[in-house]
Amino acid sequence: MSSGPFPTPSQIPTAADVDAAARRLAGHAVRTPLVFSPVLSERVGARAYLKPETLQRTGSFKFRGAFNRMVQIPEADRPAGVVACSSGNHAQGVAAAAQILGMPAVIVMPHDAPALKRDRTRALGAEVVGYDRRTEDRDAIARAIAAERGATMVPPYDDPQIIAGQGTVGLEIVEDLAALGHAPDVVAANASGGGLCAGIALAVKRAAPQARIVACEPAGFDDHARSFRSGVRERNPEPSGSFCDALLAPTPGALTFEITRALVGEAASVTDAEVGRAVEYAFRELKLVVEPGGAVALASLLEGRLDVPGGGTVVIVLSGGNVDADTFIRCIGA
Amino acid sequence: MSSGPFPTPSQIPTAADVDAAARRLAGHAVRTPLVFSPVLSERVGARAYLKPETLQRTGSFKFRGAFNRMVQIPEADRPAGVVACSSGNHAQGVAAAAQILGMPAVIVMPHDAPALKRDRTRALGAEVVGYDRRTEDRDAIARAIAAERGATMVPPYDDPQIIAGQGTVGLEIVEDLAALGHAPDVVAANASGGGLCAGIALAVKRAAPQARIVACEPAGFDDHARSFRSGVRERNPEPSGSFCDALLAPTPGALTFEITRALVGEAASVTDAEVGRAVEYAFRELKLVVEPGGAVALASLLEGRLDVPGGGTVVIVLSGGNVDADTFIRCIGA
Repeated sequence: MSSGPFPTPSQIPTAADVDAAARRLAGHAVRTPLVFSPVLSERVGARAYLKPETLQRTGSFKFRGAFNRMVQIPEADRPAGVVACSSGNHAQGVAAAAQILGMPAVIVMPHDAPALKRDRTRALGAEVVGYDRRTEDRDAIARAIAAERGATMVPPYDDPQIIAGQGTVGLEIVEDLAALGHAPDVVAANASGGGLCAGIALAVKRAAPQARIVACEPAGFDDHARSFRSGVRERNPEPSGSFCDALLAPTPGALTFEITRALVGEAASVTDAEVGRAVEYAFRELKLVVEPGGAVALASLLEGRLDVPGGGTVVIVLSGGNVDADTFIRCIGA
Repeated sequence: MSSGPFPTPSQIPTAADVDAAARRLAGHAVRTPLVFSPVLSERVGARAYLKPETLQRTGSFKFRGAFNRMVQIPEADRPAGVVACSSGNHAQGVAAAAQILGMPAVIVMPHDAPALKRDRTRALGAEVVGYDRRTEDRDAIARAIAAERGATMVPPYDDPQIIAGQGTVGLEIVEDLAALGHAPDVVAANASGGGLCAGIALAVKRAAPQARIVACEPAGFDDHARSFRSGVRERNPEPSGSFCDALLAPTPGALTFEITRALVGEAASVTDAEVGRAVEYAFRELKLVVEPGGAVALASLLEGRLDVPGGGTVVIVLSGGNVDADTFIRCIGA
């Protein structure tokens, strides 16, 4: 099933937009490290690197896109603030960017979002408005607030500047690998709306056209896998119910899919149990705190679903670490 | 109370030995990142960086010193292997270095060492020999094994090549800060035998003579603090009982103290409860898994014991992440 009008070619961001985003983010976003993992490399028989966006400001990659979009809001429009819909990580990215830019922020967040993410969003100074994921339309709620206040909407993924901002993850990956004398064979990142994968693909495919980008999804939320097969944007049957609260977008974005169908085209999926084991592995072996939604690409590697060439170079993006203690304990407890 | 013969000046390593260690470690140790932390910087009113040795091979800095020492064992002596005493992190460092160098390794480890550390040491191919921390002399046990097998002893800290290896942590800190246009004002690392602090001091004080190095210790195990005050090597009253299982050396090393009395001279101490809060903070805000002994410098910063100048640059070394799930859950559980 296809939905919405096609994006115009002029809306589709390019690698040059990622470069511009990197310049805007300098001094605001953390340049997260690319970390070589001997233990993971030995396990998979390849050169395995981690890109821990868990160490990014607000604990996920989402700050990159939010700041890149919001820093371009004209001065005159800033006092009216911004409105965003998010189950948690985009919320914190928008709230942190708003705090830095001195703007008010309203976040429309589902009632079932993790308490940690709600609390952290409020701690960053944002106003949180709740809604029911099954019965209410979050976009309608957000549009009404934006209209009333004259505020700017900051979409979670389907925006050229959001995609370009997330793409700086890919730019840093290829730059840091090049400094070590390597190029990526496989870069794996989780996909929900597809902004992270699309942005990464723009930067990585320019530098390393032979690299494969793999969109990693929770089982039952494999809209990218099905969309790549059918060639049109497919929807997920259920709007909630995965362990991976960060990855519940109903369908690939219109803009993101224009990019990912051309530059990604490949997906992997993992069950909730496999994701839980990856969270535990990250705790025990990598010493990193990763939330379930942030561990989907790692789980895909650990479960052998990435088809990494022996001795090749694989980069796993750990997209976020905002996990409640209770959920984390459930994953690591014996 | 002073103990043991004074080291000869020729045994005391220099910054040049740290440079040589860095060349030996290249391609074997992970060059761990220097990570800027916005959330910690805002909290302490300074530019706060983390040096997560949790991401080092075997999950702690100990691999650096062990490999630097062991790679210099003559080929003829390698088949007889190595012997080391350790409560866990040095054990894993020695075991991993032995595995890379194709040598057998025996580790003399206290019965109360965390199960995780014992299991990980065995998983790296080492033989573990247990002893009682209160009634047995681990050094005597190790010496007997070494004599019987003709094996080489790899001391945990009081060895010039071990100190030089740990010093590469400091070398990377000053190099990575310089690349960002900064120099450290304060570098804080935990101290047990003092090898890490001594090595770091060699590298950091050469590059940044104005920098202060602070040795951070668990309360009740503040032998460095007391030794700095008295000018001689003081002993801790108890051989066990701290939450920080990695930091139970009875007294500063003879060699390490020659360096730390001259180049460090300053200490901070924190209680077990404060260390537990730092482990929880690292989980919640930094998204890093840090073991209690590895969180002592972080706890010292969070508790305001490091006297960091406002707007200055502080580097916190997170020395290890080998923590049992049960202990970690006790720290982060609500």
